[in-house]
Amino acid sequence: MNSVFELCTAAKSASYEIALLDTEKKNKILCDIADAIISKKDMLICENERDIAIAKENNMRESLIDRLTLTEARIEAMAEGARQVATLPDPIGTTLSDITRPNGINIKKVCVPLGVIGIIFESRPNVTLDAAVLCLKSGNATVLRGGKEAIYSNMAITAVMREVLAENNVSPDAICLIEDTTRNSASELMNMKGLIDVLIPRGGAGLIRAVVENAKVPVIETGAGNCHLYVDKHANLEMAVNVLTNAKCSRPSVCNAVETALVHADVAESFLPKLKEALSPYNVEIRGDAECARIIPCSPATDDDWETEYNDFILAIKIVKDIKEAIAHIARYNTMHSEAIITDDTASAELFTKSVDAAAVYVNASTRFTDGFEFGLGAEIGISTQKMHARGPMGLEELTSIKYLIHGNGQIR
Amino acid sequence: MNSVFELCTAAKSASYEIALLDTEKKNKILCDIADAIISKKDMLICENERDIAIAKENNMRESLIDRLTLTEARIEAMAEGARQVATLPDPIGTTLSDITRPNGINIKKVCVPLGVIGIIFESRPNVTLDAAVLCLKSGNATVLRGGKEAIYSNMAITAVMREVLAENNVSPDAICLIEDTTRNSASELMNMKGLIDVLIPRGGAGLIRAVVENAKVPVIETGAGNCHLYVDKHANLEMAVNVLTNAKCSRPSVCNAVETALVHADVAESFLPKLKEALSPYNVEIRGDAECARIIPCSPATDDDWETEYNDFILAIKIVKDIKEAIAHIARYNTMHSEAIITDDTASAELFTKSVDAAAVYVNASTRFTDGFEFGLGAEIGISTQKMHARGPMGLEELTSIKYLIHGNGQIR
Repeated sequence: MNSVFELCTAAKSASYEIALLDTEKKNKILCDIADAIISKKDMLICENERDIAIAKENNMRESLIDRLTLTEARIEAMAEGARQVATLPDPIGTTLSDITRPNGINIKKVCVPLGVIGIIFESRPNVTLDAAVLCLKSGNATVLRGGKEAIYSNMAITAVMREVLAENNVSPDAICLIEDTTRNSASELMNMKGLIDVLIPRGGAGLIRAVVENAKVPVIETGAGNCHLYVDKHANLEMAVNVLTNAKCSRPSVCNAVETALVHADVAESFLPKLKEALSPYNVEIRGDAECARIIPCSPATDDDWETEYNDFILAIKIVKDIKEAIAHIARYNTMHSEAIITDDTASAELFTKSVDAAAVYVNASTRFTDGFEFGLGAEIGISTQKMHARGPMGLEELTSIKYLIHGNGQIR
Repeated sequence: MNSVFELCTAAKSASYEIALLDTEKKNKILCDIADAIISKKDMLICENERDIAIAKENNMRESLIDRLTLTEARIEAMAEGARQVATLPDPIGTTLSDITRPNGINIKKVCVPLGVIGIIFESRPNVTLDAAVLCLKSGNATVLRGGKEAIYSNMAITAVMREVLAENNVSPDAICLIEDTTRNSASELMNMKGLIDVLIPRGGAGLIRAVVENAKVPVIETGAGNCHLYVDKHANLEMAVNVLTNAKCSRPSVCNAVETALVHADVAESFLPKLKEALSPYNVEIRGDAECARIIPCSPATDDDWETEYNDFILAIKIVKDIKEAIAHIARYNTMHSEAIITDDTASAELFTKSVDAAAVYVNASTRFTDGFEFGLGAEIGISTQKMHARGPMGLEELTSIKYLIHGNGQIR
C-alpha cells in the first residue's frame, strides 16, 4: 500500500501530463471508462458484495446499506454519467482575455486545470467514478479518499479506470485511491501542501467541518444546507403550499431541501392550515414557535431547531412580523446554500434577492433546483457554500484555474 | 478597545449595507477619502512620527523605517490611488450569465461582493488605505490587522476613513482596524468563521505561511516569488542579458524579481561573461553550479539556493542540458508566481508556457511586469500564488463572488 505522500506525488506528476491532453483524447478515455465499467460489472458487483457483507455484520442501517449498494442499474448510470461528461464542452485552453499593453507586451488569460484535486467522501462508491471523470475532463488528476465502508468497491472501480488510462498510454496515477481509510490518512491528505491544489469534501456536516477546520491545503466547502422558505404577505398561498411541500418532502435527505419556513404574520392564519393538510400525507413533524402553535397543532420549536439541518421529514416554522425579520433570521441561521421567497410583490422580491446572502436565491420556485444538472452545467462535483472560487453547483469550469501568458520582444520594466 | 470578535461582527453587519451601495455613492466616498487624507496630512504625519520614534528606539533597520515613513508625497500618492480606484469600472451587479430552463425558471448568475475581507499586513501603513478602498469599491467591508510598528499611523488613517463613511451616512464599521497587535489577535482573526469571508495576508514569507497553515477561514495566498528566467539554446543573448538584468536588479526586494537563472549548456560559454559584465554595476553576487563556476567566477550554489527567494542583489545560476531540465527544475522549486523563457524558437516557447505551472509565464519579457497596474487591472490588492479563486495580480473582480438568482412562477422539482 502506497503512502498518502507517495500517491499525491505520483498524482502531481501525472497532472502535468493530463493537463496537456487534447479534448478528443480525454473524451475517448471517458467513453472507454464507460465501456469498461459496464463490461466489468460482474466483478464490480462482486467486490461491492464484500463491502455489503461487512456492513451487515456491523449492523449498518438499511438506508446506508442502500447508498452503498452497486446494482446493475447504478453501474449503468455511472457509465452514462461518464459518457455525458464526454459530451460537455472542454473549458481548458479557452482564452478569457487578450490585451496588448502600450509597451507592446501581449497578455492572454487562459483557462488551465487546477492540477490535483483531492476528494474526501463517505459511503457512496459511485462518487469514485463521478468525481474522477469530471476531474479528468477538466484536465486534473484526482486523489480519492473514500470511506472504509466502500473500500472494496472503490478499489475495484479505481482499478478499472486506471487500467483504461494505461491502455490509452496515459499515466494511471491521474486517478489515485488512498486505500488506507483510517482517520490518519485523511489528516495526511489535508496537509499535502504543494501536492493537492484543492480538496473537496463530500459528505455529512461532520466530515465537512473536520476538513474545513484542519486542512492546510485549499478547500472548497460543500453541501451543508440549512435552507429557508419565506412566505411573504403578498404570496400566492396556493403556490406557497405547493412549493414548500415540494421543497420539504420531495427528498428531505438532500442539502437543497427546506428546513425552516418563515411565514408573514398577516397570512399565517390562512396559510398554516392549508400547509398542514398538504404535509400530512408525508407525516411531516412540525416544530413551530408560539404563534404557529396558536394556529395549528405542532411541537414547540427551540433555538436548536433554527440551526438544524434535519435531513428528515421535520419542518420548523416561525411567524415573522415582516420581511425584514425574515431576512434577519436567514442571515443569522442560514448556511449560504439556497433560500426562497414566495411573493407576488416585486419590491419584496428585490429586497429579498439583494439582501439574502446565499449561493442561490429563489423567487417563487423550489430550492430543490440547486443542482448542477438543473442549472444546466451538465454535471456537478458538489455544491459550494463558500464564496471563494466557486459558489453553488460546481461543474467543469469550477474545476479550473487561470494562467497569464505574456509574450514580448525583450520588454523590461 | 473592541475585541476581534466584536469588530468582525460589526464589519459583517456593515457589509450588508456596503453591498447595496450604488457605484456613484461608492465613488463619492472614495473621492472624499482622498480629500480627507490630504486635508489631514499634518495629523497623519504627526501620528506616523510616533511610530518612527518607537522604531528608532528599537533600532529598526533604515530600510524598514523607510517603509514605515509617511511623507507628504506618499500621502498624496495614497489619495491619488483612492481617486484612481473611483474611476475603475464597478464589477458589482454585473450579470455573468442568464438562462431560462425548459421548465421556465430563469437563472441569472450575478457578481456580488465577497462580504468581509480580512487583511493581515506588516509595516507599510499605506496598505491600510490601499486595501480598504479596493474592498470598498468592490462592495466589501474590511477588517485590517496591521503590524505593531505602524499602529499609530494605521489608527490615524483608519479614523479618517471611518469619519468619511459616517459623513456619508454609511456605517463606519465597513472599515475596521484591529488595534490589538499581539499574535493572539492575528490568530483570532484567522478563526472568525462565518464573519470573515476571505483573509488575505500581505507581507513576508513567514507571515504568509503562518496564515495559510493556521487559518480556518478561506485564505488567498499571496506574494512569495521564487521566480526563474530560462535562457534557451535559441535565445537572443543580448535580449537575455538585458531582460535578466532588469528582472534581477530593477527592484530586487519585490516578489516578481528573478532569483535563479537557468542557462542552456550550449549558450552558457558566450552568455555568462556578458551577463557578468551587465550585472557588475549592481554588485550582484552570483552563486553558480559547478559548470557555471568553470565559465565565470562565482560562489558555489547549494540546494538551499534553488529554493531561496533572496529579495536581494544575489542571483543563482544553474546550467541545464536542455529545456526539459529547466522545466523540471522550475516545477520542483518555483512558488507558482512568475517564470520566463528567452527564446526565438516557437516550439520551445510553447512547450515552456504549456508546461510551467505559474500565475504568469513570460516569453521574451521581464517577470517584473506581474503587477495589477502593468496588467491593466488599474489597481492590485496583492498577487495570488494559489490556483483557487484568483491567480496572479488581484484587482476588483478578484474581490467578488457570484450569486444565482432564480425566478419562477411556482416551479417544483
